Amino acid sequence: METAGRVIKCKAAVAWEPNKPLVIEEIEVSPPGPNQVRIKIVATAVCHTDLHRLLEDTSPEGFPTVLGHEAAGIVESVGPGVTELKPGDHVIPLFTGQCRECRFCKSPKTNQCVKAWADTGNSAMAPEKSVFTCKGKHLNQFAGTSTFSEYTVVNDLAVAKIDPAAPLDKVCLIGCGISSGYGAAVNTAKVEPGSTCAVFGLGAVGLAAVMGCQAAGAKRIIAVDINPDKFEKAKVFGATDFVNPKDHSKPISEVIAEMTDGGVDYSLECAGNVEVMRSALESCVQGWGVSVIVGWTTLHDVSVRPLQMVAGRTWKGSVFGGFKGRDGVPLMVKAYMDKKLKVDEFITHTLPLDQVNDAIEMMKHGKCIRTVLNVSTE
Amino acid sequence: METAGRVIKCKAAVAWEPNKPLVIEEIEVSPPGPNQVRIKIVATAVCHTDLHRLLEDTSPEGFPTVLGHEAAGIVESVGPGVTELKPGDHVIPLFTGQCRECRFCKSPKTNQCVKAWADTGNSAMAPEKSVFTCKGKHLNQFAGTSTFSEYTVVNDLAVAKIDPAAPLDKVCLIGCGISSGYGAAVNTAKVEPGSTCAVFGLGAVGLAAVMGCQAAGAKRIIAVDINPDKFEKAKVFGATDFVNPKDHSKPISEVIAEMTDGGVDYSLECAGNVEVMRSALESCVQGWGVSVIVGWTTLHDVSVRPLQMVAGRTWKGSVFGGFKGRDGVPLMVKAYMDKKLKVDEFITHTLPLDQVNDAIEMMKHGKCIRTVLNVSTE
Repeated sequence: METAGRVIKCKAAVAWEPNKPLVIEEIEVSPPGPNQVRIKIVATAVCHTDLHRLLEDTSPEGFPTVLGHEAAGIVESVGPGVTELKPGDHVIPLFTGQCRECRFCKSPKTNQCVKAWADTGNSAMAPEKSVFTCKGKHLNQFAGTSTFSEYTVVNDLAVAKIDPAAPLDKVCLIGCGISSGYGAAVNTAKVEPGSTCAVFGLGAVGLAAVMGCQAAGAKRIIAVDINPDKFEKAKVFGATDFVNPKDHSKPISEVIAEMTDGGVDYSLECAGNVEVMRSALESCVQGWGVSVIVGWTTLHDVSVRPLQMVAGRTWKGSVFGGFKGRDGVPLMVKAYMDKKLKVDEFITHTLPLDQVNDAIEMMKHGKCIRTVLNVSTE
Repeated sequence: METAGRVIKCKAAVAWEPNKPLVIEEIEVSPPGPNQVRIKIVATAVCHTDLHRLLEDTSPEGFPTVLGHEAAGIVESVGPGVTELKPGDHVIPLFTGQCRECRFCKSPKTNQCVKAWADTGNSAMAPEKSVFTCKGKHLNQFAGTSTFSEYTVVNDLAVAKIDPAAPLDKVCLIGCGISSGYGAAVNTAKVEPGSTCAVFGLGAVGLAAVMGCQAAGAKRIIAVDINPDKFEKAKVFGATDFVNPKDHSKPISEVIAEMTDGGVDYSLECAGNVEVMRSALESCVQGWGVSVIVGWTTLHDVSVRPLQMVAGRTWKGSVFGGFKGRDGVPLMVKAYMDKKLKVDEFITHTLPLDQVNDAIEMMKHGKCIRTVLNVSTE
């Protein structure tokens, strides 16, 4: 490739400061270093975690930055030491890498990876190590991915190689939301056939959790959201019952207990709200109920009466649906290609990268499920 | 039996009001009603839950009452409909009954029992239904057991029949503390061979948890207590490392993370303190750490950052160590008789029932592990 080994100038959406619109800028992207891969991003979607970082997690040292972590693209060039990827490979960048060698990667119990933490930890994210510059300033990387850019550089342990026949402007959603929700039901909660489930929050992650519950054989899936516009979509993914907390004066856990003879077998919190996390736990049946926190928030503690757990409930959490990324993402893409996994149904809007702020506004106001941003042509 | 069918006058320790010494009184105990069993209590021990009820859970409607729930005795008479127990059977009363018929009893996932809840729920505990009177007043029953009495009446689903050769003044401890701690490690945490564990709080329950970790094959068991006098005893039960939070200025979860390359595989909270519950969770390794709440408190919420769970930790709770009482208690007694379970080592003091207040004071001040009260002669 003519660009290999050179700095690429390209377009990116830059977050210069917290809680301000992103600005489309020309940025410079360094060539990949050892064990790094430079990727041409074809499509990226906007996820709540991007908003959380922009609007709420406003530590000033995080800015300026390039957000974005749910994407798909094509390898442009690889750095020294990269053996499993080559230019032209179709890939999905991973915000949770998989080195395949650490004690976490070797355990079937988790998708955590020691090496991926080190790579995306604060020190590695320091501006002076960033591969991005703009107007003479280094831009922070985000989540090890930074996909709101025509090109980005990612560590090779954080790249999943996928079927080149898969449409990148669809399967980009497997890079975060769909895997996070679906896997939380299937891998983390381990929903059993015939069980009763409740999913709190019907964004893309929650809808994917509904889909995961259905795939696992749940006989009843209660979809909970304060925005009843989401219920129709939830039905598409398999929800059987619908609860709007605004329709009830009593705590939603009591409403669900009445509907289910004491509570659900599994609940999944997909809102990133600590009060909802508490409700989700309390909505589980005592004895064996399992509640999984899927939503992401760093702002507050979550609280609960300890007897909720002593009575036999289990509280777990999930990141990226428990999928080991390099192994799991290609299988999720295959499931989509085999028509065993819905993806297109999540996409409510498609826009060019230039309109990223419109996508953010729609998400802030619950007006979309997923907006896919077209970044580059293949 | 000459007493069958008649009211028995006997001695009991009565808690007339919250946070006051118990008073040894002559009380009247009704004959057992349908599906009830009247038991001559031979020995009972004092557990923290009795203290919690007396000192902290001071709802006045709970008094006067007869405390006590960790005991062993002999069936004196049975009410109509009781088929599996007869006078003379050696038994351990259960604060968590097992009807063997409800959906919980039929599930291998839990030791909860719908019928036992109903029996020990508030309505069944109402004074007018109590089998105890004293000086013309009804006394509340406690935990469905009320064993600080020469005689008590218990529902038949809450009675475990045990080997008549077992010494009642020892195996009474299997009625709560030993089973709760041991089972929390073996049944609830499901400690795996070769794992690293931490046990917070080294009362009888915590020491039994240490013993359970060892029985499950843990290679390292970190015993944590602010009272270093407990460490020697913990070594007897298998503890390998000892941490006194008072020796450290940093959070104990950091101390444990440094000792264990990131945290333990399993932690067990046996103190009934919400701050300790939080520490115990935070002391688990991310990815797969499991923390079990064994301690009992109804006073406060427990709080934690949700990312603790999102990072892969699991938070559970356990009541009576997950044992289904009628099935599990006889097996625990057998393990003791086969010298596979330590019991005698928990007993630091033996006193007559009359000195129950001395036992309570010792427990309040951490001066004992378990005091066994001799109530009646066999």
